[in-house]
Amino acid sequence: MAAALATESSSNVQEMLDIEQNKSNERAQWVLNAPKPPGFWQELVNSVRETFFPHRRKFKNEHDGFNLVFTFLHGLFPILHWCRNYKASKFRNDLMAGLTLASLCIPQSIGYATLAKLDPQYGLYTSVVPPLIYAVMGTSREIAIGPVAVVSLLLSSMIQKVQDPLANPIAYRNFVLTATFFAGIFQASFGLFRLGFLIDILSHAAVVGFMAGAAMVIGLQQLKGLLGIPHFTNKTDAISVVKAVWNSLHHTWSPQNFILGCSFLCFILTTRYLGRKKRKLFWLPAIAPLVSVILSTLFVFLTRADKHGVKIVKHIDRGLNPSSVHQIQFHGQHVGEVAKIGFVAAIVALAVSIDQSDTYMEAIAVGRSFASIKGYRLDGNKEMVAMGFMNIVGSFTSCYVATGSFSRSAVNFRAGCESTVSNIVMAITVLISLEFFTRLLYYTPMAILASIIMSALPGLIDFNEFYNIWKVDKLDFLACIGAFFGVLFASVEIGLLVAVTISFAKIILISIQPGTEKLGKLPGTDLFCDVDQYPMAVKTPGILIIRVKSALLCFANANSVRERIMRWITEEEEEEEKESSQRKARKNTQLVLLDLSNMMNIDTSGLASLEELRKTLDSNGIELAIANPRWQVIHKLKMANFVDKIRGRIFLTVGEAMASCLGA
Amino acid sequence: MAAALATESSSNVQEMLDIEQNKSNERAQWVLNAPKPPGFWQELVNSVRETFFPHRRKFKNEHDGFNLVFTFLHGLFPILHWCRNYKASKFRNDLMAGLTLASLCIPQSIGYATLAKLDPQYGLYTSVVPPLIYAVMGTSREIAIGPVAVVSLLLSSMIQKVQDPLANPIAYRNFVLTATFFAGIFQASFGLFRLGFLIDILSHAAVVGFMAGAAMVIGLQQLKGLLGIPHFTNKTDAISVVKAVWNSLHHTWSPQNFILGCSFLCFILTTRYLGRKKRKLFWLPAIAPLVSVILSTLFVFLTRADKHGVKIVKHIDRGLNPSSVHQIQFHGQHVGEVAKIGFVAAIVALAVSIDQSDTYMEAIAVGRSFASIKGYRLDGNKEMVAMGFMNIVGSFTSCYVATGSFSRSAVNFRAGCESTVSNIVMAITVLISLEFFTRLLYYTPMAILASIIMSALPGLIDFNEFYNIWKVDKLDFLACIGAFFGVLFASVEIGLLVAVTISFAKIILISIQPGTEKLGKLPGTDLFCDVDQYPMAVKTPGILIIRVKSALLCFANANSVRERIMRWITEEEEEEEKESSQRKARKNTQLVLLDLSNMMNIDTSGLASLEELRKTLDSNGIELAIANPRWQVIHKLKMANFVDKIRGRIFLTVGEAMASCLGA
Repeated sequence: MAAALATESSSNVQEMLDIEQNKSNERAQWVLNAPKPPGFWQELVNSVRETFFPHRRKFKNEHDGFNLVFTFLHGLFPILHWCRNYKASKFRNDLMAGLTLASLCIPQSIGYATLAKLDPQYGLYTSVVPPLIYAVMGTSREIAIGPVAVVSLLLSSMIQKVQDPLANPIAYRNFVLTATFFAGIFQASFGLFRLGFLIDILSHAAVVGFMAGAAMVIGLQQLKGLLGIPHFTNKTDAISVVKAVWNSLHHTWSPQNFILGCSFLCFILTTRYLGRKKRKLFWLPAIAPLVSVILSTLFVFLTRADKHGVKIVKHIDRGLNPSSVHQIQFHGQHVGEVAKIGFVAAIVALAVSIDQSDTYMEAIAVGRSFASIKGYRLDGNKEMVAMGFMNIVGSFTSCYVATGSFSRSAVNFRAGCESTVSNIVMAITVLISLEFFTRLLYYTPMAILASIIMSALPGLIDFNEFYNIWKVDKLDFLACIGAFFGVLFASVEIGLLVAVTISFAKIILISIQPGTEKLGKLPGTDLFCDVDQYPMAVKTPGILIIRVKSALLCFANANSVRERIMRWITEEEEEEEKESSQRKARKNTQLVLLDLSNMMNIDTSGLASLEELRKTLDSNGIELAIANPRWQVIHKLKMANFVDKIRGRIFLTVGEAMASCLGA
Repeated sequence: MAAALATESSSNVQEMLDIEQNKSNERAQWVLNAPKPPGFWQELVNSVRETFFPHRRKFKNEHDGFNLVFTFLHGLFPILHWCRNYKASKFRNDLMAGLTLASLCIPQSIGYATLAKLDPQYGLYTSVVPPLIYAVMGTSREIAIGPVAVVSLLLSSMIQKVQDPLANPIAYRNFVLTATFFAGIFQASFGLFRLGFLIDILSHAAVVGFMAGAAMVIGLQQLKGLLGIPHFTNKTDAISVVKAVWNSLHHTWSPQNFILGCSFLCFILTTRYLGRKKRKLFWLPAIAPLVSVILSTLFVFLTRADKHGVKIVKHIDRGLNPSSVHQIQFHGQHVGEVAKIGFVAAIVALAVSIDQSDTYMEAIAVGRSFASIKGYRLDGNKEMVAMGFMNIVGSFTSCYVATGSFSRSAVNFRAGCESTVSNIVMAITVLISLEFFTRLLYYTPMAILASIIMSALPGLIDFNEFYNIWKVDKLDFLACIGAFFGVLFASVEIGLLVAVTISFAKIILISIQPGTEKLGKLPGTDLFCDVDQYPMAVKTPGILIIRVKSALLCFANANSVRERIMRWITEEEEEEEKESSQRKARKNTQLVLLDLSNMMNIDTSGLASLEELRKTLDSNGIELAIANPRWQVIHKLKMANFVDKIRGRIFLTVGEAMASCLGA
């Protein structure tokens, strides 16, 4: 009776095991009979469609033609959307913000124009048209549009290689306008064709390093104005500039300029310090530059210090932006080069603006709850179209490349702007100044412009972010520091190139590193995890479970991965030998279980390498089993007949593979 | 009573749930409290150690000094290992194989020397010294060492850009010898410093395409000899060559050469066909070239056809390899360039040899069981040291770059070689020919050399492999076809460059593609799998489970991944809306569960992107949970304070995350 029961129960157990086995087999079939993954062409088509028409579903709804046009216009001109709810109270805030902006913008624009090696009025022109265009097309409320330091430096340093601005300022200016046109075209097409990912080639780390380097270079360049040096080097690298300054110090510098510039620099920095201490005094640093300009101009005018060596701005053309349509050149030998410069400027202008808006978002998000700035995230593509159009129109109206300025956006925000109307107010204010007040700037000393530019530089160097990057990722930091030193000691382009190269080299390095890890069973679960990450994971004697960490088993890492796996086996056996010399009952590795769950794709070299691994293990009497191959991988294994060769040893999970192989 | 029971059972259930909950919490703690992963420096040190000292454990055993030296010598000279078991019967096989090899090698060597634009005897020299060195240092039994077509072409096409071989043949030869020396140095250092992965930059697909392109170019070059054209172009691209041939056809070609060459080409190809049909006749194609040389030479000698326009080899220097130590140049303006050529030649020679040995292994493994060639896999590093030394010594003894020849290795294998002694026999035979028989080759027609070279070319074009690569991986095929057309229509270097560029671009492309997939629960399991790969997987309403497929969330794909996830949510909600219009009871997405099990690393941009995703979801009232973050990722999430921000919503598995979030 008892025997019968025992038999019955054992047959029950057997039955259950059989059922379990059947289920497991069935699941292994799921792996093998997966539908064919999308082929190369289909994936290509999909990714193109995803890039260009991500919202195609939305258009399937019952939009008639009119609605579609309406939606399209609303999309292109967000102002149509919010202007209906625009109120007087909002306008009051925007007016104040716009005036504060203008007071900061006018001196900065003049300074940045000299940095771009253009006449001062071109900076002012650039603060008129682009902000107006952006106001109707842009999606960001706080961003303040206009010339910025980094782009001004980039343009001048790249274009003066094509044309010397001193030898032929008109030809140089034409090249700048042409580059601006191309930059606008590129930016608009990035947005229209949804090529925003092109901006992503400049990683955050690269932008941080690049900006810091550019700030240092700009600072060094300002020594010319600050020291009143008449003959300066055209090069931008630190060593040439320091040499030029050193040489001038022995000959021709004027202490008056230096004293004037430094005292106002101290003034501006002090107001900034006060502004940071007391939030209510935010307007103090914002108007300090204008105050400096007024005070110093008055001082020079009254003392006639310009006759004693203080360099002054002199004549600034008055009046509205003149048309510059005919100055844009599509013929001539340098067009290709200028278009390239436009491309670089387009990417840098966008990257700087986006990266700053991100940093800046972080900064302002600290103060408020996130809900209040909900939905604020810029629509990247619309933003690029807006910036592109503003630069195209700008290039027709004597503006050079404009983008979002970090320092002015911060002021705009603190001043309580409510919409892009603050940009309109600013543009109109600048326009009025252009019409009426340019003559007043005749006696403005150059040293003041230099000190205004210098005072904006600390905002570009983000030591905290340097440290953060170092902490999180050493290779990112390498790209960051590479960009920094590249810009500082070689040139702007080389800095960018270094950063991009390091960033992509890092991707290749990480992608092809032959990563493998040993797995063990987590106690109390059916999970198999990395024994290094989870020290509590238990290894099963005689079975070596290895997960390939690389997403791609390809020509560049297939051999190393295979060799590493073979080495795991040797090491494992040596360890076991050591132990078995004490315990005598240990067996050698009998099964190698490859967990392929991380491997997204495999190429011909990878397939060959797996096949070779199988053969080598076979000849050593070790079984090879595979768990959880991904879609593309199982498809390729099938095509390469690898599945036939290890038939019955492909499983859905590591656990099932172990159960099945141990059972057999 | 019943109520009490019910209460008790429900409290039991509650208890069990609590226990389950506790366990799950505990496991979530495992994720959070993982030990610190190895830092950047430690990983660097590890990978350097793995590269240079992979077998360090082995040396820990009780080796004394003498043993170590002994092991080292054994490692360096494998001949010490097997020569003790070498028997007369083996030697008989090796002797036969060696003689067969020599009969194929002598005409091929002379032909390849003309391909390398050197005097014929240099080909023979190269078949003497390198095989001898390889015989004592190499690990492969079947490989036949000597000049090969692809490397000969590579050297001549690259060096003739530095020095015209017609204008100054001596200077040209010195450059070839110097390049050989550098190639040897590079190969030996690859082996000594375990830099074998450098060879891997030429993917299998690239090598296949490159070889096929090179074969076409070589074939076109042979038209010169076959048609007896006196003035030919120095360029190697197809268009220039075809033009040159076309021009010559109108002026100065000699039909005698063509008829002679073609008839013997037909003869050689016929013997090859016979050799393939009947395995026993393998020697027929092997000696056919030598027979052709003898017959054609006799024919020309007897008919004095050289006086009627048949071009002949004329004088070949007799005697042993002369020393060329003093011809290697380390000074002069071209040393850097020649070293670069040596580097390229080193990599190509190794890649060709390794790739062919792999293909070849496949071919021969079909015939035998794998066990009989077990342990045959070449030790890459030893092999590279052996090849390096043979080329260094070769460069001192008037040899140019030698490597393993595919056609001759196949003959060697079929002739039944037992060890590298067959290479020694071959080398001695070539040596004897050099000493005594060079005079007999005076009347050998050039057209025969051309037809011998051409007859070896079909082996270099592997149509099957082209098709296989196309089938398995379209981007690999692009690299393959890029190398092919690059070599054919531009130049050898450009072909290589194109292939390497495409291969690495492919890695970048695959690594940064913003892959995400929706997961569903597999019926009957706790597993969550890709719903596309496993159509039986069931989605849970209200919960969106997304797995990031990229191994790296970095600046290049972080934004796209974030946008794609947001789009998944929109699509999901739209679908649910559609369904709920019928069923009315559906709820919106409440939880987004990110499965990070495939993500190996994350950079600052990736962290920022995750943080932004969290905020956006938060502001839309959707919860974000994370399952199975990997070692580096959880570490970085902790450092960036992301863990604190979504505390309690990081889990070990998708299943536990679902249970916990649904419970709460």
